[in-house]
Amino acid sequence: MTIRTRLTERLRIRHPVLSAPMAWAAGGRLAAAVSNAGGLGLIGGGYGDRDWLTREWAQAGNAVIGCGFITWSLDRKPELLQVALANAPRAVMLSFGDPRPYAEAIRSASAALICQVQTVRQAREALEAGADILVAQGSEAGGHSGTRATLPLVPEIVDLCAAEAPETLVLAAGGIADGRGLAASLMLGADGVLVGSRFWAAEEALVHPNALSRAVQASGDETLRSSVVDVVRGVDWPPPYAIRTLRNGFTERWHGQEEALAREGDAVRQAYADAAARGDMDTAAAIVGEAVGLIREIRPAAAILEAMVADAETWLVGGAGLVRPG
Amino acid sequence: MTIRTRLTERLRIRHPVLSAPMAWAAGGRLAAAVSNAGGLGLIGGGYGDRDWLTREWAQAGNAVIGCGFITWSLDRKPELLQVALANAPRAVMLSFGDPRPYAEAIRSASAALICQVQTVRQAREALEAGADILVAQGSEAGGHSGTRATLPLVPEIVDLCAAEAPETLVLAAGGIADGRGLAASLMLGADGVLVGSRFWAAEEALVHPNALSRAVQASGDETLRSSVVDVVRGVDWPPPYAIRTLRNGFTERWHGQEEALAREGDAVRQAYADAAARGDMDTAAAIVGEAVGLIREIRPAAAILEAMVADAETWLVGGAGLVRPG
Repeated sequence: MTIRTRLTERLRIRHPVLSAPMAWAAGGRLAAAVSNAGGLGLIGGGYGDRDWLTREWAQAGNAVIGCGFITWSLDRKPELLQVALANAPRAVMLSFGDPRPYAEAIRSASAALICQVQTVRQAREALEAGADILVAQGSEAGGHSGTRATLPLVPEIVDLCAAEAPETLVLAAGGIADGRGLAASLMLGADGVLVGSRFWAAEEALVHPNALSRAVQASGDETLRSSVVDVVRGVDWPPPYAIRTLRNGFTERWHGQEEALAREGDAVRQAYADAAARGDMDTAAAIVGEAVGLIREIRPAAAILEAMVADAETWLVGGAGLVRPG
Repeated sequence: MTIRTRLTERLRIRHPVLSAPMAWAAGGRLAAAVSNAGGLGLIGGGYGDRDWLTREWAQAGNAVIGCGFITWSLDRKPELLQVALANAPRAVMLSFGDPRPYAEAIRSASAALICQVQTVRQAREALEAGADILVAQGSEAGGHSGTRATLPLVPEIVDLCAAEAPETLVLAAGGIADGRGLAASLMLGADGVLVGSRFWAAEEALVHPNALSRAVQASGDETLRSSVVDVVRGVDWPPPYAIRTLRNGFTERWHGQEEALAREGDAVRQAYADAAARGDMDTAAAIVGEAVGLIREIRPAAAILEAMVADAETWLVGGAGLVRPG
């Protein structure tokens, strides 16, 4: 069995599930594993490292995958879009910026243009850019997000598309880590889901084992959306975006003290980078969303995807069974 | 047709929908209308005005309803619980505080004890208090909330209950305003939903018409979770709780300047109270959640409830139809 939606038709995939293009974590092996299992895997173009991107595309082998970029970062190195397009991506996803400068090139390469948005206003702009697919992302997501929540954001954007661009698909993102989240998203009117944290905790993801160990023990109560991690990494994110991570000693020390942290300078930055490299998770914060509380083990991406879809099928069939003669 | 869940069985109601006990807005007429239409309506015990509470219970007539309290406020006037219990409520809901001092009295009155929680940690405490029903409330809700989001919070609390208290029911709250939200909540494993904003925009709610006019035109993008409205009303909410409202000139002026606002003193407080009374919505902020973007008209509560359930039934049946031979 499987779940058929407009997304599976449009992207010619078996399951209505995309893996998020998580910067540094979503390399070619993860993307290929998701695609080979019937979803669509997206490499994380992230902050624009050409060598990393080229290497990870090679790691994906012959799998049909896609790629995602942080748009404001791509603005600084727009030539990286060609690195992705040269690999014949099934889709290119743009998040956190104006997609219009890139829309024509993506369409000309026969890739689906996916625009991730955090508000209804941004959704309107993405429709003007000619997006094929909108990802409505809630602030419960891991990594960067806006301030709206997935559950009410998705149907509002679904309504917008139904009224103004009925051929445009909508995916839900943020807080979705299992079959329940997939089934719920379909009930909200989404055509599928984009999943981050659950695939971050896949065997194929490029994540330090110590970060994974923390994540599988954590409740969603233990995450924090803050600018601390961006400030200490020297990554110049524009407001209102912030990054959700697990709380740790470092985020507790500096959250609300970001300006003081910025004044600490290179020493604390280098110490943070070293901590991340060696897996000191009391300093380097694991980049996951609230759905971390639903993640209890590290598994291969294919097993994650298969369980998610099978569970969603069970919930969907069971849901219809709740409807009874009154 | 209707939707049967453990909640409809347990509370002996027709539809798995409760209206939220919104302070001042959820009076006896609204609660009765929801109950008479097959849900369970809850009067908002709010900040503890005995005359208001007595009057609103009388307004509900013979309808079987329930009542909700802000627990930290009830701590200051615990005798108000007896006002509610004297009216034979089907359920009493406690939010934002320690429910344990009240649990025995509620159970002895044969009312269901509903504990609204904002974190998994609070859910554990509510189970220790012997809650019959947990409401897992996300921060997209209107009025007061914590910081977690509904979509990932609900299944994590469902898993907790399944492991430790399988007879305890779980409702979803925050961001749910139509049949899609109800159907999605059931897919997350919830036994039903608690709905605020959508019933705030019912004809029977005690809300100024100018506030309603703003709400039906607003997108969910236009809400703000802040302490401004609590500070100016002189309501002493403990952190980490804050109140979500529509943004307006007043919240834009003072958000992030709460300490300065507190120093403004009685003049600004009185001006705010006057603005609320006369419906000056550039000053007084409408208290709604992100789901306001799904609300386009003011309707009778019965019509809202019937449409919500009928649409959810359609989505649930349609969801099963997405499952196909692979």
